[in-house]
Formats: sequence, structure tokens, C-alpha cells
Amino acid sequence: MKALVHVKLKPTVLDPQGQTIQRALAGMGHSEISSVRQGKYFEIDLDASVSRDAALKNLTKVAQDVLTNPVIEEFSVEILG
Amino acid sequence: MKALVHVKLKPTVLDPQGQTIQRALAGMGHSEISSVRQGKYFEIDLDASVSRDAALKNLTKVAQDVLTNPVIEEFSVEILG
Repeated sequence: MKALVHVKLKPTVLDPQGQTIQRALAGMGHSEISSVRQGKYFEIDLDASVSRDAALKNLTKVAQDVLTNPVIEEFSVEILG
Repeated sequence: MKALVHVKLKPTVLDPQGQTIQRALAGMGHSEISSVRQGKYFEIDLDASVSRDAALKNLTKVAQDVLTNPVIEEFSVEILG
């Protein structure tokens, strides 16, 4: 079973890296790009023996405890099946 | 218009960061997780005046030229509308 966990900064947290990319692109003529925010994601393989519900529960815990800094980041878990 | 650009290491390139996370999770009892690979993604806002086709073309060029190291990484562009 495959799953994706996306982690990004909360909307209220500044993303200087994304802002730098946006400004660089504007300087290259891409003025149509008004905002860039960067996040990270994890492609996770799970044993096929795990049920979809258990996978979602386990990965939500893993995302909360290990992959995310809950003070500044938020996450989403997606089971691809 | 919103778009997502996902950038990840090519399948043939080792991902020591992902391997470290996988081993750490195994040590915490998550032996059901057999593989973790980490990538990055960009949430991009574009002016509504840009057509969907132009946005896809522009972002593919941006991903190729700026966001990706084509030697070791690959990307995908998704227009969310």
C-alpha cells in the first residue's frame, strides 16, 4: 500500500524560501506567479497486510509525532491504496 | 489559479534522509512501514488572467529550469484551477 504525507507551514507562518523563489521568478519575467510556498512530502510504502483504516491511523500518528513540527506546520495524509 | 509542483529524487537515486526516517519509525514499532522517500512541493498562485495551457507550459519551464536539479530529480506539474 502506498501513502502520501504532505507537510507545509501553517498559513500564518511566513515562508521566506518560497518568497525568495517567487521574487527570483518575477525577475526572470514570470510576473504571472503571485505566490510560492514550499512544503515537503513523504512517499510511504506500507505492508499490504495493514488495513486502510489502520494505515491512516498509524500515519496520522507518525505525521503528528515525527514528521511535523505542530507549532508551525500542518499535514495531510492520503492513502493511495 | 492554483498549481502544485512536486519534485522528488529519481527512483535510482538513494534517499538517505528517507531511509533514516524509515529506520527511526521501525525503531518506534512501525515495522509496517517498509519505505519512506522524501520530496518537496511548491504551492503556486498564478494570476487568473493566465490560461490553463499557458500556466502548465510556464510552470513546466519553471520546474525544469529553477525548481529541479535534472541530474538527480524529476517533477510533476498539476494545475488545480
